[in-house]
Amino acid sequence: MQKVKTRIHEILNGVSTEDAHAGIFHVFIITLIFLNVFAVILETVESLSSRYAILFKAFDTFSVFVFTVEYLLRLWTCTTDKRFRGTIKGRLRFAVNPFALVDLMAILPFYVPMFLPLDLRFIRALRLFRLLRILKMGRYSDSLRTLGNVLNEKKEELLIAIFAVLILLVVASSFIYFVENAAQPEAFSSIPEAMWWGVATLTTVGYGDIYPITSLGRFLGAIVAILGVGTIAIPAGILTSGFAREIQRKYGKRDICPHCGKDMNEPPENSSNNG
Amino acid sequence: MQKVKTRIHEILNGVSTEDAHAGIFHVFIITLIFLNVFAVILETVESLSSRYAILFKAFDTFSVFVFTVEYLLRLWTCTTDKRFRGTIKGRLRFAVNPFALVDLMAILPFYVPMFLPLDLRFIRALRLFRLLRILKMGRYSDSLRTLGNVLNEKKEELLIAIFAVLILLVVASSFIYFVENAAQPEAFSSIPEAMWWGVATLTTVGYGDIYPITSLGRFLGAIVAILGVGTIAIPAGILTSGFAREIQRKYGKRDICPHCGKDMNEPPENSSNNG
Amino acid sequence: MQKVKTRIHEILNGVSTEDAHAGIFHVFIITLIFLNVFAVILETVESLSSRYAILFKAFDTFSVFVFTVEYLLRLWTCTTDKRFRGTIKGRLRFAVNPFALVDLMAILPFYVPMFLPLDLRFIRALRLFRLLRILKMGRYSDSLRTLGNVLNEKKEELLIAIFAVLILLVVASSFIYFVENAAQPEAFSSIPEAMWWGVATLTTVGYGDIYPITSLGRFLGAIVAILGVGTIAIPAGILTSGFAREIQRKYGKRDICPHCGKDMNEPPENSSNNG
Amino acid sequence: MQKVKTRIHEILNGVSTEDAHAGIFHVFIITLIFLNVFAVILETVESLSSRYAILFKAFDTFSVFVFTVEYLLRLWTCTTDKRFRGTIKGRLRFAVNPFALVDLMAILPFYVPMFLPLDLRFIRALRLFRLLRILKMGRYSDSLRTLGNVLNEKKEELLIAIFAVLILLVVASSFIYFVENAAQPEAFSSIPEAMWWGVATLTTVGYGDIYPITSLGRFLGAIVAILGVGTIAIPAGILTSGFAREIQRKYGKRDICPHCGKDMNEPPENSSNNG
Repeated sequence: MQKVKTRIHEILNGVSTEDAHAGIFHVFIITLIFLNVFAVILETVESLSSRYAILFKAFDTFSVFVFTVEYLLRLWTCTTDKRFRGTIKGRLRFAVNPFALVDLMAILPFYVPMFLPLDLRFIRALRLFRLLRILKMGRYSDSLRTLGNVLNEKKEELLIAIFAVLILLVVASSFIYFVENAAQPEAFSSIPEAMWWGVATLTTVGYGDIYPITSLGRFLGAIVAILGVGTIAIPAGILTSGFAREIQRKYGKRDICPHCGKDMNEPPENSSNNG
Repeated sequence: MQKVKTRIHEILNGVSTEDAHAGIFHVFIITLIFLNVFAVILETVESLSSRYAILFKAFDTFSVFVFTVEYLLRLWTCTTDKRFRGTIKGRLRFAVNPFALVDLMAILPFYVPMFLPLDLRFIRALRLFRLLRILKMGRYSDSLRTLGNVLNEKKEELLIAIFAVLILLVVASSFIYFVENAAQPEAFSSIPEAMWWGVATLTTVGYGDIYPITSLGRFLGAIVAILGVGTIAIPAGILTSGFAREIQRKYGKRDICPHCGKDMNEPPENSSNNG
Repeated sequence: MQKVKTRIHEILNGVSTEDAHAGIFHVFIITLIFLNVFAVILETVESLSSRYAILFKAFDTFSVFVFTVEYLLRLWTCTTDKRFRGTIKGRLRFAVNPFALVDLMAILPFYVPMFLPLDLRFIRALRLFRLLRILKMGRYSDSLRTLGNVLNEKKEELLIAIFAVLILLVVASSFIYFVENAAQPEAFSSIPEAMWWGVATLTTVGYGDIYPITSLGRFLGAIVAILGVGTIAIPAGILTSGFAREIQRKYGKRDICPHCGKDMNEPPENSSNNG
Repeated sequence: MQKVKTRIHEILNGVSTEDAHAGIFHVFIITLIFLNVFAVILETVESLSSRYAILFKAFDTFSVFVFTVEYLLRLWTCTTDKRFRGTIKGRLRFAVNPFALVDLMAILPFYVPMFLPLDLRFIRALRLFRLLRILKMGRYSDSLRTLGNVLNEKKEELLIAIFAVLILLVVASSFIYFVENAAQPEAFSSIPEAMWWGVATLTTVGYGDIYPITSLGRFLGAIVAILGVGTIAIPAGILTSGFAREIQRKYGKRDICPHCGKDMNEPPENSSNNG
């Protein structure tokens, strides 16, 4: 039994890349996640949801069944991991780790309406929660982990950039509100309303549903548009440099130290001989 | 008394990071500034300002009281600083330094209508001036200082970029005015009007309130749009590289080589043995 | 005969840059490709296509004639190349290599309607296929090959970025659908419809044909717009760095140190004297 | 007389930065150029041009007088320069150098209508040509020269990027034309019309005057929008890196060679001692 448990744990967590069963299992789960997201999207199309209602329901039930089995197996086998030793305490510790919570959130919306009387609107919202199954990707996708690393490493720079954008947004929206309010009392009825214009302008989206029409307002708007390009592009640049570094680290493009001529990305050989 | 004064000066200026009182004071002031900005924004929403008029007024009075006390304490204790020695001369010199002026501007709009008879529109403008309290952040926020450093260091590059954009804007707007004026005499009634189109196009905001409709105008517009992307992105790139450098300097990510432990960004010491 | 064949093969494939005939042939073919693309574009303009129908037809026939002769000559002479030895087997291997397939696709749409009875709409589609002649450029254009190299080298980073954008797109569109569906049941009738808004916002195109109008929707939209700028700019940054590297490699800007004349991008030779 | 000529030549060309007269002259000319551009812009505003017609005329006459004197003095003193030796031949050679041509173009539109009978529309066009006086800045502005250097150095990369964008534009516009033509026969009446949409989408300007409405068209449009961001941002990135390098060269931020540890931007000292 212990052997079966260890084997299942291996397959679920795919320790080795040569494990064929783990490989098949991973591809199967990732495909299922993608199909689920696709199903949630298509189900909102009236013509499809009414015609294929039974198919959508069947696929959802099947997916939840698979994800539930996966969750229970993980819960059963988690004690194999050193971090989660202990029949109950270990399992509880496992259940509150972020990955396990995401797995739970992926199936819970299916079971909740069975036990609780909910009004229809709430159930519809719950259906959308199935999209959270996309978060299960985090466990399997290397790419998303790279993205996470980049965001984590650059968080200080990003916070500064976002902070600067927010201040610019508040200042720009307040000025434009004050200038345009008289000419367009509906479009620029308050600073929060003006901030909708501010975001559309600073991000250069420019829907065109709201824009200044007075000369002073246009002058201000022009300055905001120009400043906005600069300010918003900063996070982009920060992320880019972070990405480049992360990729370099991962795919081992060499980086030579000018002092000793060795590759920066290789671990230092035991330097005991140097002394 | 001198001791109290020195202590207050320390708290106000937060010399040491281990000073708990200074820490509490800073968090309190920053929170108050944020709440003030929030209040100014919300007060422009008709439904809120009419219902909670008294609350807004009370909060504003309280904030001004705190900021006034802060300002007076700063004025009183500034003589502790070597730069502002001298009971009157030192305090005057302190009062005209940028940070003190910002502090004064944050409270003045409250007191002015008490002493001067002003028309309503001017008072409404003054209310917006309360937003300038956001500038007080400059004293406390590390992030804003980083941004300031970056802007300062890269000002030559930025000026070149802005200058190039302005010339492109003038030339593009003049051409489009000449080409489109006949077909759309209202939208492109003059070069300044055409510049509103120019800014929206060069920044890629593209509200869609004004755009060329003739073939030649569209051809020109297409070229401007393509050029614009290139020209506007330059300040973004400049700021990005400046940011990266500033952050590196600050957080001391020193790029240590794992083999020899030396800083990658310093020149290799004179390898005198080579010759 | 063998000599003629070898010479034609040389001209067609332009081995040496000093070969005047090959140079003339290349310029001629590239010009013809450009004129073809131009003709296809202009032919869709009603007023031109009706007036100059015969000219367009004549030019197309001439082009297909040239491209057919080119294709047949390539097919005949390909056996000169070691890779395609063998009268029939070699030629078949040549015919299925991507460049040869593109050459075939450039002429096939002309001959198909001669042998197969097709309805008019299909023939119109075939006409557009003539645009694929632009792909013939791949054989001649250095620039396109550089672009291809860059895309190939950076494909992992680009896939991560596109994957992140797609997830953000799905999540953003689903949320906005849920929030705006009640207020705008037509514009946001389903998640796929909402994704059209999502793409326009994330790419900052912002046509303005569809946008949130509720407060919550606008709040969400603002966050998506800000996030979008960051996420979309990543592929741009990745491509940029890839481009810079490719160009450097190609034009051999070798970053020579003016003091010691060595390449900056090569590791310093083993400074064995140091130990 | 020769001394006066040499002195005027010095002032006009500002050889030394310590020359006070040359400094005053440069500031005066640059100010005049800016005021001219400003005047041309303002003159297109109906209300201003009708009220201050005489002022505009007077200022234009004064400017042309100054620029004419400047041009004649340059023509007279150019023989001081070694490159333009020779009373007539030298002056002719001077007259056709780009800077002199720009100077001539800045004054010619004023004199032409005096000697040639022109219709009104042409004269209006000539008036716009006065904007070319902005090109005179090229002689005085360091910034514009930096920009020129960057564009020159990066021209290969920029050409590749523009070429790629153009191909993408043609392909995208052709596809969208084919897909949307049936649903919107007016907006997408031909490929050239569709290219207006293509430019607005690829540059992310997105005016919103023309956009796909069919499902397939929107799917295509989404892909174009996403590709566009990547393709268009490339020239921006290229320009940015070029800028960074140019500035670095100019303001001498140090760049250390990892081989010899010397500054890359300093000229190599006479390395004769090395051998």
